[in-house]
Amino acid sequence: MTIEKKTYRSGPYQDFFTQGTLVGNVLYISGQIGIDQNGNTPASIIDQTKAAYSNLLDVLSQFGGNMDNVVDETFFVTDMDEFMSNAEAVYGAREKAYGSRPEVCQTIVEVTGLAFPELKIEIKCIAHL
Amino acid sequence: MTIEKKTYRSGPYQDFFTQGTLVGNVLYISGQIGIDQNGNTPASIIDQTKAAYSNLLDVLSQFGGNMDNVVDETFFVTDMDEFMSNAEAVYGAREKAYGSRPEVCQTIVEVTGLAFPELKIEIKCIAHL
Amino acid sequence: MTIEKKTYRSGPYQDFFTQGTLVGNVLYISGQIGIDQNGNTPASIIDQTKAAYSNLLDVLSQFGGNMDNVVDETFFVTDMDEFMSNAEAVYGAREKAYGSRPEVCQTIVEVTGLAFPELKIEIKCIAHL
Repeated sequence: MTIEKKTYRSGPYQDFFTQGTLVGNVLYISGQIGIDQNGNTPASIIDQTKAAYSNLLDVLSQFGGNMDNVVDETFFVTDMDEFMSNAEAVYGAREKAYGSRPEVCQTIVEVTGLAFPELKIEIKCIAHL
Repeated sequence: MTIEKKTYRSGPYQDFFTQGTLVGNVLYISGQIGIDQNGNTPASIIDQTKAAYSNLLDVLSQFGGNMDNVVDETFFVTDMDEFMSNAEAVYGAREKAYGSRPEVCQTIVEVTGLAFPELKIEIKCIAHL
Repeated sequence: MTIEKKTYRSGPYQDFFTQGTLVGNVLYISGQIGIDQNGNTPASIIDQTKAAYSNLLDVLSQFGGNMDNVVDETFFVTDMDEFMSNAEAVYGAREKAYGSRPEVCQTIVEVTGLAFPELKIEIKCIAHL
């Protein structure tokens, strides 16, 4: 059985997986991390969140989408206490990324590790176009 | 690009995220936790599971759905040994919530933390209406 | 509200959950683990990855699908360092399972435990038929 996929690849691991795969009008997006366009990883979870959303918007825009297309988010954080202590600023950065109150559901779990030791948050989304 | 979303918000974090976001006939649902309607968190994983499914049903019912609409579950548990020791009762509570043998796929992983320290299980689902 | 589901069950836990649930053309698949058809769990993450993809293909084929139908993968690994040290071989096994460069997005997180202590990787996928 064959399906029509549109994909977007970017970054050093683009031989291994896509950043986004569109099938029909459903856009599956790889977990986005807080490494900025220059390859730097900011120290704070707030700045990593900003960078992750910036990367997410890059993926969405490759498919003609924007933040309004996101329907589901999973936050994988490495330190729930740190996340909760910074929740106001993290959610502030998130709302700024969306431009308004996100109409998006969300699941947050604490894991012991992400792809690189310096990462504090990874955001996995599904969008519909 | 604009999509039509229907959302449901509830509880103390409703300014931050929806409990469910419907797009087309796909209903994405935030991870449901075992805090009951009175704001209490039961101690046992069995009772938390019951409360989580009760909360899940509340979300589904806001969209005219019920447990039969669920197609995919991810269980995030904080203690796999405890989960496994109580598996019979947990799955019993789950089957009772569904009303019959769930026609639902499932993924179970152990994480180090959920939103609150007293939580033992979080259930993330996707439903189709 | 009633939806049409097609499901596939297999293995010792088939009373509890399906290995795959198809609704419309979306196939949700339970996290696949590296236990082979004989019930053995190989020690290395590489061999577990091979076995997990073999199990995944079994599920897909029950619905008339194949690896090309996969659109989204989440890797839950129990040791990110071990995963990264073996990344070349793991991704080699994965590409071999797909038959060509996968047009699939991917999220990788480290968790503290999977269903059985000897498991090192669990692969959760969504496919479209």
